[in-house]
Amino acid sequence: MHRKGLLGQLIQNLCCLPGVGPKTAQRMAFHLLQRDRQGAKTLAQTLLQAIDEIGYCKQCRTLTEGELCEVCADKSRDESVICIVESPADAWIIDQATGFRGRYFVLHGRLSPLDGIGPDELGLDRLEQQLASGHVKELILATNSTVEGEATAYFIGELARKHQVSASRIAHGVPMGGELEFTDSNTLSHAFNGRVGM
Amino acid sequence: MHRKGLLGQLIQNLCCLPGVGPKTAQRMAFHLLQRDRQGAKTLAQTLLQAIDEIGYCKQCRTLTEGELCEVCADKSRDESVICIVESPADAWIIDQATGFRGRYFVLHGRLSPLDGIGPDELGLDRLEQQLASGHVKELILATNSTVEGEATAYFIGELARKHQVSASRIAHGVPMGGELEFTDSNTLSHAFNGRVGM
Repeated sequence: MHRKGLLGQLIQNLCCLPGVGPKTAQRMAFHLLQRDRQGAKTLAQTLLQAIDEIGYCKQCRTLTEGELCEVCADKSRDESVICIVESPADAWIIDQATGFRGRYFVLHGRLSPLDGIGPDELGLDRLEQQLASGHVKELILATNSTVEGEATAYFIGELARKHQVSASRIAHGVPMGGELEFTDSNTLSHAFNGRVGM
Repeated sequence: MHRKGLLGQLIQNLCCLPGVGPKTAQRMAFHLLQRDRQGAKTLAQTLLQAIDEIGYCKQCRTLTEGELCEVCADKSRDESVICIVESPADAWIIDQATGFRGRYFVLHGRLSPLDGIGPDELGLDRLEQQLASGHVKELILATNSTVEGEATAYFIGELARKHQVSASRIAHGVPMGGELEFTDSNTLSHAFNGRVGM
């Protein structure tokens, strides 16, 4: 009925959110307009401000509203350890889950020559400058365990070796609390071959 | 890591959307900032405009940006049949699913004396004016089939009778395509007692 009106437009625009289809968008629009106009207003304003002000950290390339992100600006962080991740979300998740107190470097993707994504697109020139500076002692490679992610980790590992910086890869295996019965065979075979002495 | 920054604020504000928790909000924020800033901007602007301009139709009380909603303003609609619903979303859904070409009346709730919701809160005075005008010939009661929804339907049915307007209740029973085995006993017993000659 309102398809052509402002309400229809709002429902359509809400569909740009990931995982939100027409039905959910409809529910969201009605909820915001009927029950939470104040929250909706704050959300819209924050969103506009975020789009305007959030750019990329000039050191680690994560999303931030300043020149340097909070991690890079934090003097208490260990500058000698850099964790390499594919996306800002990965950096965020690692920071919340682990006690890691070093810095990050965000690739914004992974090596994928067929898609035209090479070392330059991943900012590896900037990473190499940091490695060449001599402050960095260790790289932790936390790219995804896909084919491209592994290739990217290998490539950056070689880069580290060139600059005499040690590099390590995060462990892959059976998830904690996971049951063997429900673990896919690829993971299980990896976990079996990568067993650790106890 | 960015908890205190603009990004953290955006994630927190996204949680005001129904069904969106911290994890989903996080995914939405990163998606919007990294992949769809244009879409995010349009969404924020539409949202602000909608909050500002969308009010209630003075005739049927649904959400609309005009004085009258599209349905009430549509001269080709049958003014003599009014479908009573609890919320604007219900009116929207009925309009999309059925070929109904009459008008709606939105209660914005249901009778619930314990919560202080009586006939006035549901706008029944305005509905009664419409019934008294003599233009209305039929009411279709499409309130939910909860205890309060049924009580509300009954109450409005009495109102209709007072004004010599016929009233009908939408049918309740086994959903189309539904299997008896998976139908709850309340629905099944209702469907059995309300069987229709064929």
